[in-house]
Amino acid sequence: MHILLTNDDGYHASGIQTLYRSLRSLTEHDISIVAPESERSATGHSITLFHPLFVTEHDLDSHQKGFAVSGTPSDCVKLAIQGGLINKPDLLISGINQGSNLGTDVFYSGTVSAAMEGVILGVPSLAVSLANYQFTDFEPSAVYLAKHLDYIIKCHKKGLLNINFPGKPQSKWAGVKVTRLGKAIYDNVFERRVDPHGRAYYWQCGNRAEDLEDDTDLRAIQEDFISITPMHSDLTDFKGIEPWKKYFNTSNSLLDNGV
Amino acid sequence: MHILLTNDDGYHASGIQTLYRSLRSLTEHDISIVAPESERSATGHSITLFHPLFVTEHDLDSHQKGFAVSGTPSDCVKLAIQGGLINKPDLLISGINQGSNLGTDVFYSGTVSAAMEGVILGVPSLAVSLANYQFTDFEPSAVYLAKHLDYIIKCHKKGLLNINFPGKPQSKWAGVKVTRLGKAIYDNVFERRVDPHGRAYYWQCGNRAEDLEDDTDLRAIQEDFISITPMHSDLTDFKGIEPWKKYFNTSNSLLDNGV
Repeated sequence: MHILLTNDDGYHASGIQTLYRSLRSLTEHDISIVAPESERSATGHSITLFHPLFVTEHDLDSHQKGFAVSGTPSDCVKLAIQGGLINKPDLLISGINQGSNLGTDVFYSGTVSAAMEGVILGVPSLAVSLANYQFTDFEPSAVYLAKHLDYIIKCHKKGLLNINFPGKPQSKWAGVKVTRLGKAIYDNVFERRVDPHGRAYYWQCGNRAEDLEDDTDLRAIQEDFISITPMHSDLTDFKGIEPWKKYFNTSNSLLDNGV
Repeated sequence: MHILLTNDDGYHASGIQTLYRSLRSLTEHDISIVAPESERSATGHSITLFHPLFVTEHDLDSHQKGFAVSGTPSDCVKLAIQGGLINKPDLLISGINQGSNLGTDVFYSGTVSAAMEGVILGVPSLAVSLANYQFTDFEPSAVYLAKHLDYIIKCHKKGLLNINFPGKPQSKWAGVKVTRLGKAIYDNVFERRVDPHGRAYYWQCGNRAEDLEDDTDLRAIQEDFISITPMHSDLTDFKGIEPWKKYFNTSNSLLDNGV
């Protein structure tokens, strides 16, 4: 199988490089890397339309190149697959990210958006995060993933698995939970300051309030479980269609009614 | 009611200013504007964590200020609601955008992401787009919206309505369709060039292939209907949870198994 690795912490980040080494040593798969040349966290699903994208090649091993792209995580996936930078992969893995990607925060996440771009382009994807900005030992998460990869590849034929590992040594992991996305609510989100010229400005920050709902990814990580959330790519609210149809479809005449 | 307007084309764009004037003249609602100070198209749901946000005040009318923010559409919504820039709105309208926001393209859309940010913060939202980059008469769309706004406010208590107007004169509108999100597929996505120094670079471009599936927003706009798609904010694939539980929850022992 051919696996494409990308991330939002940048090509040289420890998370993606550790994952690459683990997959190379513990699996037989072909591994490509196409990742942003620098950190692009919190870029969400942005893409670059109005600037050109430059690509820098790096030696990945003796017979293969890795690609660093001057764009966002989603640009990397599009360029890799649609720009013909590599052969179409069978699986995309985005990560391992430094810091969690949980609940509604997945909308802001470059890591999850890159994986979602894979899904849109027909490639089953994983988004993988280590849920702590300070804890930097990616090895146990990478090894866990490598050891389960054959089963995941066998069963994961479409969509996205959003995987968050506890940001703690493996001895403290409580187990695995398959979860739903929770609600990531923040308090104290903007800190107002005044610059030396007297202009007000705002820093976005804030602490995430605890999510005490059952079965969520946020709760699982709070309790030191590995959280695995299956995700799809369709934001249509199908239940909402019929009620609105009653109003709008029967009100086509409104178009003539002076509107 | 208090309505917050934002967009991704920037505070001074014709779409948002036309919408403001139509809502002021045709409705009795209080209207605030908090929008990016410059164009931020295709920014997706990105937020600004590592730079401060500056806010410029503009006279909106004799008794009210509008706010232009040095950030993304999602920053604007967060700063407006969580940063206390305005009172919490009852409804958020993002737009009117110059150009369509249809199908899987909603993931890249600053317009839709701003509306989704409203939903995450508990404010029912509309994303409104004019489906043509060249056609610039926002007036009929703005008036249509203003005339239906009271019904929308009465029925739209949570989630997002993604509304695309045909990019044509109103005399050519075919009616209204309530739709699901389609698949926005592009061909010829990257054009490879070589710069004067010999370095290869890539422009992202490409034409959207036609979506011939029934009931989609893409199809509705192709056929000159106004498209209205109800959207939610939960990307969990609930059907995927049980199959993965069987493997992962019963394989907690794998944690001890050398992993």
